[in-house]
Amino acid sequence: MQVQANALRAFCQHALQEVGVEEEDAHITATVLVEADLRGIISHGVARLRQFYVDRVRDGKIVARPQVHVLLDAPATAVIDAGGGLGHPVSHRAMQMAIQKARDLGVGFVTVRNSNHYGIAGYYATMALEHDCIGLSMTNSSPLVVPTFGRVAKLGTNPIAVAAPAGDEYPYVLDMATSTVPAGKIEVYDRLGKPLPEGWVIDEAGQPVTDAAQAIEHRRQHAEGGHLPLGGAGELLSGHKGYGLALWVEIFCALLSGAPCSYETYPNRPGRKPQPAQVSHFFGAWRVEQFRPLDEFRAAMDDLQRELKDTPKVAGQSRIYVHGEKEYIERDRRSREGIPLNPKVVVDLQLMAEELRIDFDL
Amino acid sequence: MQVQANALRAFCQHALQEVGVEEEDAHITATVLVEADLRGIISHGVARLRQFYVDRVRDGKIVARPQVHVLLDAPATAVIDAGGGLGHPVSHRAMQMAIQKARDLGVGFVTVRNSNHYGIAGYYATMALEHDCIGLSMTNSSPLVVPTFGRVAKLGTNPIAVAAPAGDEYPYVLDMATSTVPAGKIEVYDRLGKPLPEGWVIDEAGQPVTDAAQAIEHRRQHAEGGHLPLGGAGELLSGHKGYGLALWVEIFCALLSGAPCSYETYPNRPGRKPQPAQVSHFFGAWRVEQFRPLDEFRAAMDDLQRELKDTPKVAGQSRIYVHGEKEYIERDRRSREGIPLNPKVVVDLQLMAEELRIDFDL
Repeated sequence: MQVQANALRAFCQHALQEVGVEEEDAHITATVLVEADLRGIISHGVARLRQFYVDRVRDGKIVARPQVHVLLDAPATAVIDAGGGLGHPVSHRAMQMAIQKARDLGVGFVTVRNSNHYGIAGYYATMALEHDCIGLSMTNSSPLVVPTFGRVAKLGTNPIAVAAPAGDEYPYVLDMATSTVPAGKIEVYDRLGKPLPEGWVIDEAGQPVTDAAQAIEHRRQHAEGGHLPLGGAGELLSGHKGYGLALWVEIFCALLSGAPCSYETYPNRPGRKPQPAQVSHFFGAWRVEQFRPLDEFRAAMDDLQRELKDTPKVAGQSRIYVHGEKEYIERDRRSREGIPLNPKVVVDLQLMAEELRIDFDL
Repeated sequence: MQVQANALRAFCQHALQEVGVEEEDAHITATVLVEADLRGIISHGVARLRQFYVDRVRDGKIVARPQVHVLLDAPATAVIDAGGGLGHPVSHRAMQMAIQKARDLGVGFVTVRNSNHYGIAGYYATMALEHDCIGLSMTNSSPLVVPTFGRVAKLGTNPIAVAAPAGDEYPYVLDMATSTVPAGKIEVYDRLGKPLPEGWVIDEAGQPVTDAAQAIEHRRQHAEGGHLPLGGAGELLSGHKGYGLALWVEIFCALLSGAPCSYETYPNRPGRKPQPAQVSHFFGAWRVEQFRPLDEFRAAMDDLQRELKDTPKVAGQSRIYVHGEKEYIERDRRSREGIPLNPKVVVDLQLMAEELRIDFDL
């Protein structure tokens, strides 16, 4: 099933409004979700609309109409309490604040506490591009990742996203979980029925898990084991670096904003009263012209990208990519041709539409 | 051979002054080098004094007494031209500037261009700690790392260092090359005569290099092949993430400061007139109290570290570390017991002392 982005966005917004989210917040959230699908990051798109957002709002785990408070607003920094609402709208506003500070002063940083899952980290980083800024976005998340030498998950997949403008080439957009792969990738492998490579997930004995459904079931049951940090198990291939990057994210998101770390987020357990997830984020912006004339920077970004692409390739490979490029190409194509939806996702959205008594009019 | 840090520092400073470096610059450089040995990062310590610094100053590749220019000095940002001098002194001053800006305004960022190899990235990040700031330090470097799917090195090992203060626990100090391992680790394995694990270095055909001496010889000859980015070859274990982190460093160091990228640094070739290396750096500081009361932050850092250390361990492991901890423990020990020097390093320093006609009085 191929759907147009506009129709998919309207459907998502409709569903979110139906469970009580205000129009503008629902619109921003729908925009971020569909943007993930447009970029081909299908793990973080509308496949998660129901389970990650709509159901949690209905269950009272996400506050539909939160009281958002700016706790601190200084020239270069701010701290926001999201009031337990959806992560996307508050993150959108926090990044806007960081960008405005960067336009005024050269740099801006905003932490957000008491929030929820905010979708793709890269969305907020790329907001900086049209303002000729470099953007940064980080978030902690539910505890899925083991520290090096540990067999119980304590850290989130804690993504880092950085975006920088270019000239004729696509902007650079790094958007990476600090684990080997993000949790959503396991969901994609499960939907495709593909085995997981070793080095992604370990079980309670520290042994590789290669069955995607088993990995997801483990996670649901909060069993021991978990995702490995970037670099894999142990220190030989530097798994401690991925673990260290995850800690960096934890410090900037949770510790600077005064929020719980990943291992204390999502305290909900079956049978207990719904509690807020308490996820936290960090956003930053650096204005390029604060350091160097913009046209020179853009030209240098193009030169760098061309030099990398011209690198002689290893056997069997014909192309070298720069971060963000695949997603921009995919976005162009999907904007024209529509977004292909996995049959399992379509069924899930249809069921949700029935429950909410809204039209599934895609 | 065990030597005391003070004696080693004085010897290094003496050698640098002997080739024309000013006293204060020589002192800072010696301090950073010996600090690497104290922390147990022996790949980046005095083992490199001769080849990386003294010889290059003598050969005219590093300007002994550079003209350093502050090209831009705004409230939150600055850009410095290092005049082709040693990387350590200018980086020390740039980080001091970033910290001062963070004390005034909450955050501060300084780029440095036209510099040289600056030693351990972590040194500058940890300078922020005594000012109750979080510190950031990045540098590009000579082209040693292949982009994902490439077989020619284009990027530096481009380290990232982040340091954050704690309470009773050691500060968090992440100091990581964005390649699987830093170049210095190959030198250490060579000195120890140990084979390299697969996933560190590839040859011109994209095949793993397991012989350390061969890897170093390849590098000297600027042969094809090179280090793999963190995550290894290809995309299966997310080698593109290490490649993306290296690009982040390139953008913040070289592109923001107006310097060449790693693949254009160190343009010297045998038989040609010495040219400056043109390495560039990026430094940042965030004042914790700009976001949250310091005592709360410190207590939360302690809680986070204790939670991680209490994680149940995989079979065969008895301890989980937090980044910086091993180095602080080693620093305590080596400050008391002295710094053990590898016999090959001792011979190298003795030969250098003879050439410079200074005492090898350790």
